[in-house]
Amino acid sequence: MAYKIGKDTLVTPSCPAVLSTAAVGAQKEGEGPLGKEFDLIEEDSRFGQETWEKAESKMQELACKVALGKANRKMSGMDFIFAGDLLNQCIASAYGARSSGVPFIGLYGACSTFAEALALSAVLVDGGAGKNVLAVASSHFCSAERQYRFPLEYGGQRPPTAQWTATAAGAAIVSAERKPPFIQAVCFGRIQDLGINDQNNMGAAMAPAAASTIKTFFEDTGTGPEKYDLILTGDLGMVGSDLLDQLLQKDGIDIANRHQDCGLLLYDREKQQVEAGASGCGCAASVASCHLLPHMQKNEGPRSALLIATGALLSPTSIQQGETIPGIAHLVCFTAEERRLF
Amino acid sequence: MAYKIGKDTLVTPSCPAVLSTAAVGAQKEGEGPLGKEFDLIEEDSRFGQETWEKAESKMQELACKVALGKANRKMSGMDFIFAGDLLNQCIASAYGARSSGVPFIGLYGACSTFAEALALSAVLVDGGAGKNVLAVASSHFCSAERQYRFPLEYGGQRPPTAQWTATAAGAAIVSAERKPPFIQAVCFGRIQDLGINDQNNMGAAMAPAAASTIKTFFEDTGTGPEKYDLILTGDLGMVGSDLLDQLLQKDGIDIANRHQDCGLLLYDREKQQVEAGASGCGCAASVASCHLLPHMQKNEGPRSALLIATGALLSPTSIQQGETIPGIAHLVCFTAEERRLF
Repeated sequence: MAYKIGKDTLVTPSCPAVLSTAAVGAQKEGEGPLGKEFDLIEEDSRFGQETWEKAESKMQELACKVALGKANRKMSGMDFIFAGDLLNQCIASAYGARSSGVPFIGLYGACSTFAEALALSAVLVDGGAGKNVLAVASSHFCSAERQYRFPLEYGGQRPPTAQWTATAAGAAIVSAERKPPFIQAVCFGRIQDLGINDQNNMGAAMAPAAASTIKTFFEDTGTGPEKYDLILTGDLGMVGSDLLDQLLQKDGIDIANRHQDCGLLLYDREKQQVEAGASGCGCAASVASCHLLPHMQKNEGPRSALLIATGALLSPTSIQQGETIPGIAHLVCFTAEERRLF
Repeated sequence: MAYKIGKDTLVTPSCPAVLSTAAVGAQKEGEGPLGKEFDLIEEDSRFGQETWEKAESKMQELACKVALGKANRKMSGMDFIFAGDLLNQCIASAYGARSSGVPFIGLYGACSTFAEALALSAVLVDGGAGKNVLAVASSHFCSAERQYRFPLEYGGQRPPTAQWTATAAGAAIVSAERKPPFIQAVCFGRIQDLGINDQNNMGAAMAPAAASTIKTFFEDTGTGPEKYDLILTGDLGMVGSDLLDQLLQKDGIDIANRHQDCGLLLYDREKQQVEAGASGCGCAASVASCHLLPHMQKNEGPRSALLIATGALLSPTSIQQGETIPGIAHLVCFTAEERRLF
């Protein structure tokens, strides 16, 4: 069963496994550098639905279905679903899981949701509360844009610090079975708010949260960057990634040569006009599900990796009311081997 | 560590304790039948803030502060905060917990959030992942009304099936210490949707979810209503409470003589013009925190009780798009004695 070391890190000594993962995206994601790694790319960004919100629910459903199929499991064999998204009242998740017939635990962690879901899944599986848990998160450019910013038809201009909400969903089955990759530890983050109030610069708002969680994790585990082949942040984008490296360097931690960011992997910034990179719950969820975790599963990727998904806990209302943007970052530590790191 | 019995019920054999609770409300809640049991009633429903959304964050902060004070604990002694609310992107929770300096795990379960938070807290404490966990949830009539329905100034009429969103927050510390009440088991619910699409009749949308979770829990544990002195549902109100009793009677389960509903306890329906009763995350959170749990703590209340908080997982957008309302209900089983029930 999980136990705490140091300040905030939970070691999951049974090393819950990620049995399978799936990523679903739309045309733009298909045209990006990871396009061929996605399990399913749908040219129609409405996914055959009448509205973008329903399309997003459909993406979650599809991601779960594909993840189950790849592990040769049925939905009825899942003990719980942890799900979340960016929409008001998290409707992509509620409607996406409505027909699942599985106990549903709704989360809200903005773009950190996939790591939050994986972390809770790992703790529950490790504690014996479940044998197979589904973690899923999504975002949709069109549903997010009109909710957070402007109607798409308005054609609002985007500053260079803005990020492009991914139209994507990622799902993973966390399991008590023995199959790589394994979850060694998780670290739930503390909210950080250094006063950024520009919702077109969420990378800057989230970077301090990523720095805080990474630093805490290193301190708690007595390890440093050299212990991990890859440090993969959620969706800091160009601006936030640079800031993160700088913030950690101030504390004498140099991650630059092993740091990648889901927000910079999903699209080709030169060709795809996404300004500072990708964002959205679906960004970290899909990049982890189509890229990081399958590679580790096939023993092709890093032998050890940290996924730190970051979330900006704002709403259009909080910004209009003059509030700054609180950031959060949750961390999950994966290894290709079952041997314990701590 | 927690283990599953039957279909969905998790037994928490170490029986995590509810160390202290606190409830904060505004004038209307103060004038209701439970007014004197609230820890803090603020006549100014803005709680000294500029906006209702900030007031709701303030309520969460106050509820946590009072719960900590009653247990003689500091925020820094908490391992995690589980928090949620009804606002878009759950900003009441994010801004409420921003200065806590404690790992933050955001939830969305609509009005079921407090039970979801208590249940996850119990599982984590039982599994050794934390020694003290704070669970908090809130709602605010004014922030909810303008977000879900009409601007208050519009003075929209309310049908008799409508419920009144509570301006209230409830917080509880779930702990590994030995002090009543104890959490014996939890049951995360499955989404139920029988096709109700009237957002002014959420009791009807949530009743099937409550019936499903209660029935599953009885089957899983091999117990029936007679085992529990009180079966307290979240916020079904008048319409949903009647429906729940009927739905369970169809399955030969009669809870009527021990069933109460937080939505019917919080206000005086004769005098306070709340139509079918109270609702909102703050309803179950405050009623459990000022009434059920303190009574059990003082050995004055029921010796055993089930709290089943119910949530309607809709959004104004999903309703406008012609969707029906999915319901969810999470259950927590409390006893005044540490002796295990199962």
